[in-house]
Amino acid sequence: MRKGDCFLNINDNVVILAGGQGKRMKTDKPKVLLNVLGEPMLEWVIRACEDAGLSQMCIVKGYKAEKIDEYLGGRYQTVLQSERLGTGHAVMQAIPFLEEKRGGNTLILCGDAPFIDKDTISGALALHKEKGCAVTVVTSVIDDPTGYGRVVRNDNGISGIVEHKDCTPQQLEIREINSGCYWFDTAALLSVLGEITPNNAQGEYYLTDCVELLLKKGLRADAFVSQNPNVSLGANDRAGLLRLNDIARMEIINRHLDNGVEFDCLDGVIIGRDVEIGGAAYIKSGCRLLGKTKVGSDSVIGPNTVLINTSVGESVTLNNVYATDSVVENGAEIGPWVQLRPNSHVKAHAKIGDFVEIKNSTIGERTAVAHLTYVGDSDVGNNVNFGCGCVTVNFDGENKFRTKIGDNAFIGCNTNLVSPVSIGDCAYTAAGSTITGDVPAGALAIERGHTVIKDGYAFKKLAKRNEKFAKLEKEQKESKK
Amino acid sequence: MRKGDCFLNINDNVVILAGGQGKRMKTDKPKVLLNVLGEPMLEWVIRACEDAGLSQMCIVKGYKAEKIDEYLGGRYQTVLQSERLGTGHAVMQAIPFLEEKRGGNTLILCGDAPFIDKDTISGALALHKEKGCAVTVVTSVIDDPTGYGRVVRNDNGISGIVEHKDCTPQQLEIREINSGCYWFDTAALLSVLGEITPNNAQGEYYLTDCVELLLKKGLRADAFVSQNPNVSLGANDRAGLLRLNDIARMEIINRHLDNGVEFDCLDGVIIGRDVEIGGAAYIKSGCRLLGKTKVGSDSVIGPNTVLINTSVGESVTLNNVYATDSVVENGAEIGPWVQLRPNSHVKAHAKIGDFVEIKNSTIGERTAVAHLTYVGDSDVGNNVNFGCGCVTVNFDGENKFRTKIGDNAFIGCNTNLVSPVSIGDCAYTAAGSTITGDVPAGALAIERGHTVIKDGYAFKKLAKRNEKFAKLEKEQKESKK
Amino acid sequence: MRKGDCFLNINDNVVILAGGQGKRMKTDKPKVLLNVLGEPMLEWVIRACEDAGLSQMCIVKGYKAEKIDEYLGGRYQTVLQSERLGTGHAVMQAIPFLEEKRGGNTLILCGDAPFIDKDTISGALALHKEKGCAVTVVTSVIDDPTGYGRVVRNDNGISGIVEHKDCTPQQLEIREINSGCYWFDTAALLSVLGEITPNNAQGEYYLTDCVELLLKKGLRADAFVSQNPNVSLGANDRAGLLRLNDIARMEIINRHLDNGVEFDCLDGVIIGRDVEIGGAAYIKSGCRLLGKTKVGSDSVIGPNTVLINTSVGESVTLNNVYATDSVVENGAEIGPWVQLRPNSHVKAHAKIGDFVEIKNSTIGERTAVAHLTYVGDSDVGNNVNFGCGCVTVNFDGENKFRTKIGDNAFIGCNTNLVSPVSIGDCAYTAAGSTITGDVPAGALAIERGHTVIKDGYAFKKLAKRNEKFAKLEKEQKESKK
Repeated sequence: MRKGDCFLNINDNVVILAGGQGKRMKTDKPKVLLNVLGEPMLEWVIRACEDAGLSQMCIVKGYKAEKIDEYLGGRYQTVLQSERLGTGHAVMQAIPFLEEKRGGNTLILCGDAPFIDKDTISGALALHKEKGCAVTVVTSVIDDPTGYGRVVRNDNGISGIVEHKDCTPQQLEIREINSGCYWFDTAALLSVLGEITPNNAQGEYYLTDCVELLLKKGLRADAFVSQNPNVSLGANDRAGLLRLNDIARMEIINRHLDNGVEFDCLDGVIIGRDVEIGGAAYIKSGCRLLGKTKVGSDSVIGPNTVLINTSVGESVTLNNVYATDSVVENGAEIGPWVQLRPNSHVKAHAKIGDFVEIKNSTIGERTAVAHLTYVGDSDVGNNVNFGCGCVTVNFDGENKFRTKIGDNAFIGCNTNLVSPVSIGDCAYTAAGSTITGDVPAGALAIERGHTVIKDGYAFKKLAKRNEKFAKLEKEQKESKK
Repeated sequence: MRKGDCFLNINDNVVILAGGQGKRMKTDKPKVLLNVLGEPMLEWVIRACEDAGLSQMCIVKGYKAEKIDEYLGGRYQTVLQSERLGTGHAVMQAIPFLEEKRGGNTLILCGDAPFIDKDTISGALALHKEKGCAVTVVTSVIDDPTGYGRVVRNDNGISGIVEHKDCTPQQLEIREINSGCYWFDTAALLSVLGEITPNNAQGEYYLTDCVELLLKKGLRADAFVSQNPNVSLGANDRAGLLRLNDIARMEIINRHLDNGVEFDCLDGVIIGRDVEIGGAAYIKSGCRLLGKTKVGSDSVIGPNTVLINTSVGESVTLNNVYATDSVVENGAEIGPWVQLRPNSHVKAHAKIGDFVEIKNSTIGERTAVAHLTYVGDSDVGNNVNFGCGCVTVNFDGENKFRTKIGDNAFIGCNTNLVSPVSIGDCAYTAAGSTITGDVPAGALAIERGHTVIKDGYAFKKLAKRNEKFAKLEKEQKESKK
Repeated sequence: MRKGDCFLNINDNVVILAGGQGKRMKTDKPKVLLNVLGEPMLEWVIRACEDAGLSQMCIVKGYKAEKIDEYLGGRYQTVLQSERLGTGHAVMQAIPFLEEKRGGNTLILCGDAPFIDKDTISGALALHKEKGCAVTVVTSVIDDPTGYGRVVRNDNGISGIVEHKDCTPQQLEIREINSGCYWFDTAALLSVLGEITPNNAQGEYYLTDCVELLLKKGLRADAFVSQNPNVSLGANDRAGLLRLNDIARMEIINRHLDNGVEFDCLDGVIIGRDVEIGGAAYIKSGCRLLGKTKVGSDSVIGPNTVLINTSVGESVTLNNVYATDSVVENGAEIGPWVQLRPNSHVKAHAKIGDFVEIKNSTIGERTAVAHLTYVGDSDVGNNVNFGCGCVTVNFDGENKFRTKIGDNAFIGCNTNLVSPVSIGDCAYTAAGSTITGDVPAGALAIERGHTVIKDGYAFKKLAKRNEKFAKLEKEQKESKK
């Protein structure tokens, strides 16, 4: 039994309506696969269910159904709504799934309302079970309910959901609205699902009709007021989707502010919902922290640092770093302009300077990789110093090999280390050398050609260039500045 | 005859008032040359005229007149207003230009009100011609008209323009204001231009006096209400100019949102008005897309990518790229931190990694330039692999030469290709080689010096360094972390 | 005597209350050391005092007191408030300091209200002295005074400060509030400081009680209304601190807009309060200009440029530059992606291209360092051309040496200059050379190994790779794009 599923029995389940196109989004993706903070809206909805302990899910796909399956990768069951004939029709497609779960309760969610949350789901179910309801509608109380379906309460739960256009003047005063999310007793839902009809202006099967039918059967319907102001929020166009991103973005940033994270300017800052940041870390503008990223206390991140599934220790400096699936230990200083490609592990107090790429390598403690260097597929010891322009030559056109560098080694500038190769502890390679064989501990390796000095050659070769500069110099002096 | 000029006759023309200094801008440029989204305000005004089909333009220059001429580069006629004595005085400088266009109509525009638009220009001219007006004033209806000249309508067009301070209480209620933009019958304008006087507090010649004089002559004046809320918007200081930038910026971004372009955070995003973006492209924060840039569908651009006059295909990834006058084909992946200098052509599915500069070169399909490499003045085939640190040595101090690399070639790390040089198909250069002559197809070229290993040398040479690290290591272990 | 201290006598002094923890900030720093635009709030307060000419300061430290001392580095006297028992108790800790300054006046400031300003300090002191007050309270007049202590005026200054909860209905109407900042006659303050008691709900010693005691003794108290709307603004949590940053940030940017600096998008722009920018400079988004940075007229800075204590001339271009403690002269063009580490001096019209690091070096006029190069500890002449991939090898593992390059020299691509080394005027180094000895003026230096061409070797070596590409090519053609 997982956290949050105290109210759940084994047959409680979810049907997520995910068939819509989102025509005004102008994309060939299903609407529910459009992203909020880098994750499909459907994933937000699935996660809320998972957080509430629900594991039996059926996703009703429709537009570009194959992309839903591709995205889910078999994680949950899907059913196809081949024509889109309304919310009731969508749920009908899930009847075989529901038949198997007759003993439970069924949550119906819209896959394009990403901010549904665990507390709403669990709270509504608790009410649903406590009151023995056939259906429990999740509702919101809002300031301006114009256009929304009103929830009409009576002494025994609710007496119905009335569309705005059908409201009496008294009902128009009601500010509690239907969020489009419901808990049904599964058997009860099945008992009426076949009875709803498309006898309405749009010719669609409405799920709200099920509520009415259950009430007519004398069963109890109730309403649960969600405290989440965004519970039913969705988007019909790209501007609306941008607003969902803004809402999610600021909610997450505010949570980190509460935890003591320092920000001096939020411009361009995007933090994924699974990111963990230690108190007193300082996140500068333009940072994108995504996936399962962690940042330790007192670290200074940014500006313009992108971290994807990267674990950063305490008191680390990351200035204009782009890191994926990597680990950076305490006190490391990295940047500006460094890429850590997957499986890079930078150990404590290492220093990595400008224009460096690390890939699938370990960089030892206090090791320095100061500039213009590529370290790939390498195991680098502690206290190593890389000169500028070093390259681990890890690819021979067909295979990749590893490079091993011992503690305290000194790799001269513009050295090529042709892997597989091993540089011993405290070994030294001279600048400009291409090292193709192992270097013993404490040895110097030097590869050097003939050096020739041709006196006067350059005076002659660059004669025109020198003339040009002399002329330019004169012109610049004559011009105002 | 161009699009939009259906109402135009050959003598219809424009006079753009561009003499102002913009003193509070604190620059030595004419005010009309200050930029909105990277283009001078004057250019916005000229473009609106061109879009409306007008090609006869006279620009009245004044402050720093030579900079106007330099900017225009002879595209349109200019006249000098050597003293700035009001809008009427400015138009007087254009009398010789107007005399030649007597048979037409003259549009008077302020060069520092950049948001005038084609529809306003054409709509106002249509009314002007339909009603046989001597003058048609372009107006706006605004909520708070305080301070603006009110347009007083009567049964026969308008009876005048009344300055705020001269309004009757009834006139103060009028919310239709003069935008400062007018269509005149050219002959009628010429007939009264000599009659206006500077007999007013400021001692200036006001163009609005022409309207009054024409009405006095019994000629018809009318007003055209522009639907453009920003039609007369200008700026008197840098904060105002920043607001103009904001307005233009958001208007363009909103247009792309409507077209289905995905944005998750608009911070630092600036898109020029001529940029075309395919639906379902995703533009991240910090991107500047300028000039004649195009981006294809499903491409992911940014963060912090600058594209100037660059054409990008579909499903391209550009991460922290700075590109000018270049072409990137479908499926290419570029970045982070790559510069494409002018005349770079990156073909389909090529991959360009970190710290790479491409200049005036073609990169073939599926070719990989992974890191720390410069490819300049080169023709690179398909499936080529560049190791790290490669350089095309294209400049000998006086001349630039080209490098040619055949399909499937493999360029080893830190190779120098000294141009002019040709590397054959499937050829291979060994790491650290400087290649000064052509390499035949399928050959290996290797330039290597003597390698010497001096055992124990480094232990001795780096003795002090090793001691330092041993001490440092001890200290760090003793300190808390 | 310094600017602004016309009203000061030698014993006028300041006590800054800096003992607070700022619990909701969730950091182990004292609250006053939290940053606004990169400087501790305490520094803002100290600076306002210094600007007003005050040099006698006593800082009352409490929470994490050692960090205050560490930060101040002995600049000003500190005293420890070992328990935090209210503002009055904090001032009591400074009694020994105050005893020495008996003849003067004492300013009491909150160390966590960073926007106190020189004009408020000096203006309040002028009133204090002119009226012969025992105490002068600095006040603000605000729209909604709910919750604040009201300042009750009478014919003879003020009659007291009344806490919100103790106000009569009439007093609740008062909109003049206590800012928590006071000028006391030092002797008068000392005379009552011992008399205040913690007989209140919180059990704290309140400094406001001193005002009441002085009034009871028949001494005069008055109030000075600060024109600074943010005079007493502080922050209790990270969100509040972010607001202080925003306020400071926009105030500084607005000042630069007034001075004629061009901005087209403020996103990510942070400018420190000591930065000077010439009119008509253009600052793009994402720039952080900090410390004692100066930028000359007509320079174009950004996007994403960070300047720390760096002096930039006129008509300079800095595109994605990260510079610290450096100088860039007129007309230089730098970027994108260049780091200038401390003590770099780039002379007029030099051009520095992508992926270049300069450190502790002089780059001469019109010298070009186009790409992927590191110049450290070097003196480079005028008109020098660096090829791509050059490295000054300035560190041998134990010592750093300098490199000297004469005017008009041409450094070939991927050259290593092993310092100490001197390249003469107009000398030339061939691509791929490692230069370990001096090169005379006008000479060519070339270090080169044996070059061997092995025909057919690569065809064989890369056979599998070629097969892979052939297959890939075929697949891509068969797939849709």
